[in-house]
Amino acid sequence: MDDSILGPLILEAQSKIVLLVLDGLGDLPHPDHEWKTPLEAARTPNLDALAPRAALGRIVPVGPGITPGSGPAHLALFGYDPILSLVGRGVLEALGAGLELAHGDVAARANFCTVDAAGVVTDRRAGRIPSETCAKLVEKLAREIPQLEDVAVLLEAGKGHRFVIVLRGTGLAEGVSDADPHHEGAPVPQAAARAPAAAKTARIVNAFVKRAAEVLKSEHPANAVLMRGISARPKLPGYAERFKLRAAAVAAYPMYRGVAQLAGMSVLPTGETPDDAFATAKSRWADFDFFFIHVKGTDMAGEDGDFAAKVACIESVDRVLPKLLTSAPDVLCVTGDHSTPVPMRGHSWHPVPVMVHGAWCGADRAPRFHETTARAGSLGLLASRDLMGILLANAGRLDKYGA
Amino acid sequence: MDDSILGPLILEAQSKIVLLVLDGLGDLPHPDHEWKTPLEAARTPNLDALAPRAALGRIVPVGPGITPGSGPAHLALFGYDPILSLVGRGVLEALGAGLELAHGDVAARANFCTVDAAGVVTDRRAGRIPSETCAKLVEKLAREIPQLEDVAVLLEAGKGHRFVIVLRGTGLAEGVSDADPHHEGAPVPQAAARAPAAAKTARIVNAFVKRAAEVLKSEHPANAVLMRGISARPKLPGYAERFKLRAAAVAAYPMYRGVAQLAGMSVLPTGETPDDAFATAKSRWADFDFFFIHVKGTDMAGEDGDFAAKVACIESVDRVLPKLLTSAPDVLCVTGDHSTPVPMRGHSWHPVPVMVHGAWCGADRAPRFHETTARAGSLGLLASRDLMGILLANAGRLDKYGA
Repeated sequence: MDDSILGPLILEAQSKIVLLVLDGLGDLPHPDHEWKTPLEAARTPNLDALAPRAALGRIVPVGPGITPGSGPAHLALFGYDPILSLVGRGVLEALGAGLELAHGDVAARANFCTVDAAGVVTDRRAGRIPSETCAKLVEKLAREIPQLEDVAVLLEAGKGHRFVIVLRGTGLAEGVSDADPHHEGAPVPQAAARAPAAAKTARIVNAFVKRAAEVLKSEHPANAVLMRGISARPKLPGYAERFKLRAAAVAAYPMYRGVAQLAGMSVLPTGETPDDAFATAKSRWADFDFFFIHVKGTDMAGEDGDFAAKVACIESVDRVLPKLLTSAPDVLCVTGDHSTPVPMRGHSWHPVPVMVHGAWCGADRAPRFHETTARAGSLGLLASRDLMGILLANAGRLDKYGA
Repeated sequence: MDDSILGPLILEAQSKIVLLVLDGLGDLPHPDHEWKTPLEAARTPNLDALAPRAALGRIVPVGPGITPGSGPAHLALFGYDPILSLVGRGVLEALGAGLELAHGDVAARANFCTVDAAGVVTDRRAGRIPSETCAKLVEKLAREIPQLEDVAVLLEAGKGHRFVIVLRGTGLAEGVSDADPHHEGAPVPQAAARAPAAAKTARIVNAFVKRAAEVLKSEHPANAVLMRGISARPKLPGYAERFKLRAAAVAAYPMYRGVAQLAGMSVLPTGETPDDAFATAKSRWADFDFFFIHVKGTDMAGEDGDFAAKVACIESVDRVLPKLLTSAPDVLCVTGDHSTPVPMRGHSWHPVPVMVHGAWCGADRAPRFHETTARAGSLGLLASRDLMGILLANAGRLDKYGA
C-alpha cells in the first residue's frame, strides 16, 4: 500500500517487530540434493517449532522476472516502492564501501584509467591494477585534493581499479552526466549538468577529474580517473516519520547498514555471526520498536554455488534463534531480500519464502518453513513492499480503514 | 512490468523461447467427466514428463472476472498491457478476415442493412442474408467503389450480413464516430470526426456509405450499409525493439497471424495441425529467438461444448511434442490465451494454467500439468502481460535491476 493509505492508519503501540533477513534466502530445488532447496535440506528445529503457528507466503522484490540488486531488494522489504525509490549507483557504492552519507552529499563510482598523450582513454581499467596500488593512489589523491571550492572530497579505495568519491558541501545535486566515455578510444568527456541545480556539482566533478590527472600524470598505467553514477543521497521518509517506529538495524555489512540508514534506522554496532546479531538486538531491546537483523552468509553461499554452506548458515541461524525468542518479539518475520539460488550462483527473480509469527498471524499448520510450504501459505504471493503493512497490522499498529 | 522497467534490462543472448498457446486451454471440472477438466482427462505423457521439473502457475488475461476476446488475450500474452494497447474492433475484424494492415490503414466492421424510402433503418441485419449473398454484394461494391478520393477501398465478405472495410491512403486516422444508429427506426447517421486529424476519414466513410446505398438501391433487403468500430492499425513497439527478440509466429488462423503481426513478429506460412506447426518452427529454428506457436482446436472444442474434442486436441499436441523438444528450446512455455470452458461454450474469465520449463525455472514437482496442479505452482497467479518477464528471465535475457 501507498504511504498515503498507510500513513493516516499508523498507531503507536508497545509492540516489537523483528524483521530477520537471511540475504538471498530463496532458492531452487537442487538436482544433486534430492531436489531439495537449502531451506528444505537444513535441520531447523526452532523454525520448525514456529512454522505450524505462523503465516507463510512468498514475496516478489520488484516484479515478475525482475532480478533485484541488494539496494532495491532491501528498500522494498523496508516498505518503499523499489522503482520510485531507486537509489543511484554512486550512493549504493558509497554505502557499500562503508562511507556515511549525509543529506546533500553526492556520491560517485570512480576508477583509474589510462589515457595517452592526447588525453584519449586507452584502457578504461588501467590494466586492472591491484587493490594495493589502488589504495596508494587513492591516498595520494586524498592528500592532494582534499577540497574543491567549498566542497570536501572524501575518497575510499575499492577492489582493483575502483574507488568511491563522496562530495560534501553546499549546493550539490544529482543530475550530472558521467565523466566517462564508457568505451576506449575517446577522451574523458566533461560532466554536464542536466539542470541548473546541478551546475556546481558538474563543475566540481570536472575539477576533480582535471586535478586527478595532474596528480597522476607521472603514474603508469593509472594516470587518470573516470566518474559515473553521480547521485545524491535520496531523501526517503524515515521509519519514525512513516511508521512511528524507533527502528534499529543490526547488520555487519556496510551496504545493508547504509540502506537501513537511508530508511532512518539507527545502525547498531554488531559482530558478524547470527549469535552476535541476536545479542546486539537483545542488548538494545528496550530502545527500539523494530529490529532489522541482517544475515549475509546465505547470499554468499548462494553466490558461491555452495549448497552445504547455505544449509550451514541457515542452521547456524536456527541454532541461536532461541536467544532472539527469549526477548519475545510480538511479531517475528523471517524472510530474504531476494533469492540467490545455489545452481545459479547469483541473485534471481524467484519469489522469496516469508514466515510471519505473532498473536494474530493465524496458523497455516505447515510442518516446516521452506519454499514449498510457503507456496501454499495464507499470505499468498505479495510484493515485498507490502510486507511492512502485514507486519504493522500483526503488531497492532494499523488502525481500521474507514468506518 | 512496464516497458520503462524492462526496457533497460533487456539483454541479448543466444537462448530460444517457445510460447506454445493452446487457444482457450483453461477449463472447469466437468460434472459428466468425473469432475475433471479436459487437461486433467487427457493422456499427456510428454507434458507429464516435463511437469515435475517445470514451474507451474496461472495467468489472468485482463483482470479478475474479465472475459477477454482473442485480441486483448493475445496482446497480454505477448507482454502488452491489454487495456492500454486496446486494438479497435475494425482492426481485429480485418485481421481476423486475413486482411493485412499497413501503418496508416483504417479498418471498420460493416454490415448490410435495410432502409426504407425515407432512409430510416428498418432492419440492421438486412434479414440476416446468407453468406453467399453477402459475398456477391461485397463483390459488387468492390467493383463499383474501388477508390474514394485517393483512398483505396478494400472489402472482405464475412458471415451472414457482415463484411470488413479497409481504407488505405494518406491522411487517415481513427477517432470517427460510427455510421450506424445502433437501433432500428433511425436514419444512418453521418460519421463525425472527433478531432481535425480524422476529418478526411469521416469524409471517406460517409462517401462510402452514400455510394454503397446508390449501388445497392435496387437490392432487397440489403439496400444499404452500416460501419462501426472505425479504427487504425495501432503502432505497438515490436518484439525486436522491445525485447531484442527475432520473433516468429506459427499460426494457421488469420486473427492470430494478424495480432502477432501487430507485435512485429514474422508470420510464417504453416499448416493447420500441431505437427505442421512444430515442423514449421523446426525448419526456421536458426532464424528466430522466439516462436509463438498457436493451436486453435482447443478453443473451437470449448466453443462447441465438446469435451472429447478438447481432450483429443490436447492429446494431439502432446503426441507430437517430442518433435518440438528435439530442437531443445531453452525455455518452453505451454499455456492458453484465455479459458474456454466446455460447460460454458465460450470464452471465460477463469485464470489459465501455465507451465514454464527451462534450466532456471525451478522444479515444482507437480505430477502433471493441469488446472489443479497449476494452482499450487511456484509462479503463483500472474497477469498474462507479466509472463513475458518470466520467460525473458528464464532465458537469461534480463539484467539485474539496481545494484
